[in-house]
Amino acid sequence: MSPDMPPHRLTAAAASALIADGRLRVEDLARSCLARIAEREPSIRAWSWLDPEQVLRNARELDKTPRIGPLHGIPVAVKDVFDTADMPTQHNSPLYVGHRPGQDAACVATLRAAGALIFGKTDTTEFAAGGRWAATGNPHDPRHSAGGSSSGSGAAVADCHVPLSLGTQTGGSLIRPASFNGTFALKPTWSTVSREGAKLYSATLDTVGWYGRSVADLRLLADLYDLPGEPAESVPPMAGLRIALCHSPVWSHAEAATREALAEAARRLAAAGATVTPLELPDIFALLPTEHHKAVLHGEGRGAFLSLYRAHGGRLHDDFQGRATNREAITPAQLRAAYDTAAQARAAFDAIAAGFHAVLTPSATGTAPEGRNPGNPIFNQMWTLLHVPCVNVPGLTAANGLPVGVTLTGPRFADHALLDVAERVAPLLAPL
Amino acid sequence: MSPDMPPHRLTAAAASALIADGRLRVEDLARSCLARIAEREPSIRAWSWLDPEQVLRNARELDKTPRIGPLHGIPVAVKDVFDTADMPTQHNSPLYVGHRPGQDAACVATLRAAGALIFGKTDTTEFAAGGRWAATGNPHDPRHSAGGSSSGSGAAVADCHVPLSLGTQTGGSLIRPASFNGTFALKPTWSTVSREGAKLYSATLDTVGWYGRSVADLRLLADLYDLPGEPAESVPPMAGLRIALCHSPVWSHAEAATREALAEAARRLAAAGATVTPLELPDIFALLPTEHHKAVLHGEGRGAFLSLYRAHGGRLHDDFQGRATNREAITPAQLRAAYDTAAQARAAFDAIAAGFHAVLTPSATGTAPEGRNPGNPIFNQMWTLLHVPCVNVPGLTAANGLPVGVTLTGPRFADHALLDVAERVAPLLAPL
Repeated sequence: MSPDMPPHRLTAAAASALIADGRLRVEDLARSCLARIAEREPSIRAWSWLDPEQVLRNARELDKTPRIGPLHGIPVAVKDVFDTADMPTQHNSPLYVGHRPGQDAACVATLRAAGALIFGKTDTTEFAAGGRWAATGNPHDPRHSAGGSSSGSGAAVADCHVPLSLGTQTGGSLIRPASFNGTFALKPTWSTVSREGAKLYSATLDTVGWYGRSVADLRLLADLYDLPGEPAESVPPMAGLRIALCHSPVWSHAEAATREALAEAARRLAAAGATVTPLELPDIFALLPTEHHKAVLHGEGRGAFLSLYRAHGGRLHDDFQGRATNREAITPAQLRAAYDTAAQARAAFDAIAAGFHAVLTPSATGTAPEGRNPGNPIFNQMWTLLHVPCVNVPGLTAANGLPVGVTLTGPRFADHALLDVAERVAPLLAPL
Repeated sequence: MSPDMPPHRLTAAAASALIADGRLRVEDLARSCLARIAEREPSIRAWSWLDPEQVLRNARELDKTPRIGPLHGIPVAVKDVFDTADMPTQHNSPLYVGHRPGQDAACVATLRAAGALIFGKTDTTEFAAGGRWAATGNPHDPRHSAGGSSSGSGAAVADCHVPLSLGTQTGGSLIRPASFNGTFALKPTWSTVSREGAKLYSATLDTVGWYGRSVADLRLLADLYDLPGEPAESVPPMAGLRIALCHSPVWSHAEAATREALAEAARRLAAAGATVTPLELPDIFALLPTEHHKAVLHGEGRGAFLSLYRAHGGRLHDDFQGRATNREAITPAQLRAAYDTAAQARAAFDAIAAGFHAVLTPSATGTAPEGRNPGNPIFNQMWTLLHVPCVNVPGLTAANGLPVGVTLTGPRFADHALLDVAERVAPLLAPL
């Protein structure tokens, strides 16, 4: 390990190899991460709960234990909407202050069974849905937001507090913070990773995903969660790569930063030899990012927030009172139309995307907003509703100096293949 | 209250009215239920956890409290796959013996906020999925099973231990036990009731539902959970009722009891003046109850049982090791075909069913099997995958003396209208 590379800057894959070889102690890795956090947290505020003593105790325990699994000793941050047996789960809600569910969400239990060092809980938009914003600042300029709702998870990884973190996406809660903070994220194909023990919002949309600082680190968790998928055909060299450039039906929402980033990514891909083809989606996709996503979100959000509304009434944030009382007046007919159109579009998109190695599309409307506003998820919502895997690839910087990512997507269950493509594409987007 | 009607025999609606009027104390209702349970439980074994002292303590508390909500003091049993703050949640799994999650599932919290007396936990097929069968016997003949996986919830209501209970359905786990035990059940439209805090198996299939001894009691919870749906057109008198008789694509699995029950139900409806029209479903439905349901169940079950498999390995029941390792070798292509065919069929069924006031179809292959075998869910699986509401209407008895129910179903979100039809149909099926 080079003295220039403090352990907290290692990727999970690199740290894991060093720990397996006995060249890095879990405790030293944890101390390095804690030191980084101590330095940065006052301005970044990624964490809603972190107990350094508990982290070090668990780290020392892992140092004494024979290798448990592929994540032995790797610090992982957990979005504070997942239940954790040994930490509070507070959802950034005043109703859940100090709440301890006493059991792990399924995705956390899987991490623990692989030897991961569950580091702490990260701040989130309230219930990963609305209400209160996270306090988290953008690592590139803390006057700007880290996006949301997986605010702390995105910032904690981007800012090298920990190499990996868990998040969720129902609208754009994984990919958009990745774009704003300048890090990698994977939103896997819908319903491949269990949502048990997470705050639920929409059965059709809720998706567990994760952040890492390399494609290899995204793959580490894709393998851990055993994402289904045929063994990927080997990705051809750049000259054989077919990339669709998809502005999406909501291109009018793209700000200059996003327009330039998408064009720049396409240019660099083409310059490297890839074939980049514009992709205009058929009409059936037109309302997916807006009306249909909204109908599902609010239609299903009604049942999701009912129990909190009944138990807490006016003490519940008004946003969720609105969900529980169907303030948007979503009708069964709207919900049915959304379900059925989305289902038809899923099959259509799989067929379209099968003609490409990946579809390149925006990750956000632009760079991170000022303040703590988590930003607009409009470029993510269609892909969430389509259930397709999405990878945010960072590397580009906007004129204002903030990161701007691009999304690679593909057919349902193409997660592994998409990670292979992302691995090819990522170096092209790295700062020149 | 008639001296002939001990409180434990009251429906929830009747008990609720008496409690509201001050004519029935919650404690007396609870004592009556506990006495019934003490008498019957040795042969029925509906309960996996019940603490009479806790029940009475909570009942007395409710007697002292001003009316909290529409279920004030009403005993409700909870399938032991839902988290409960004050009772263990054991999933009929040796890995969860004595497990206390320390928080309520969302659907339990909603009950509690309405003043319900959460009575205890009911036995279930392990994780509502496979593995170990419940110990529950059929109230009509305990040498026969109560069906599953909501075994104890179905039997506890049918046997008058409590007036209401919660269950879940992923294959046929609500409707089939209702048929076997001779009680009413509603499986609502998919994703209208939150699954938060329940053991999850399949996001596409898992559905929270409930048991009651009258349609009015099913409606009590349909209202409590605020099921969406346009205000039902008023159901016409029998002479105007249009009923489709649907044998379903798996009619060859119907035993004599089911064939006779369906024919008898159709006969009585026609005799009462309804128009009963045979309904042959188009080819697209052919594989829904079998191949496509199985692909979704196993395809999504893989992620659902991964964390338990990783944490417990060989100590996990072999059934779930099989799910986690995809032993059925479900491919992404199979899963995609299942998703897309089911979605197409949902729209098609809504259109077909819109031409009728209800679709009449089997609830099970026959009567309850001997022993503890929960029976075959093949007649329920298509409807679960179609996301449509289903009501089991009891009343008919097979040649062997055991109950056999029939299912009424209709378009997605027709829950309220369907309950209205069930209310009309139920008296026709009552013993002559």
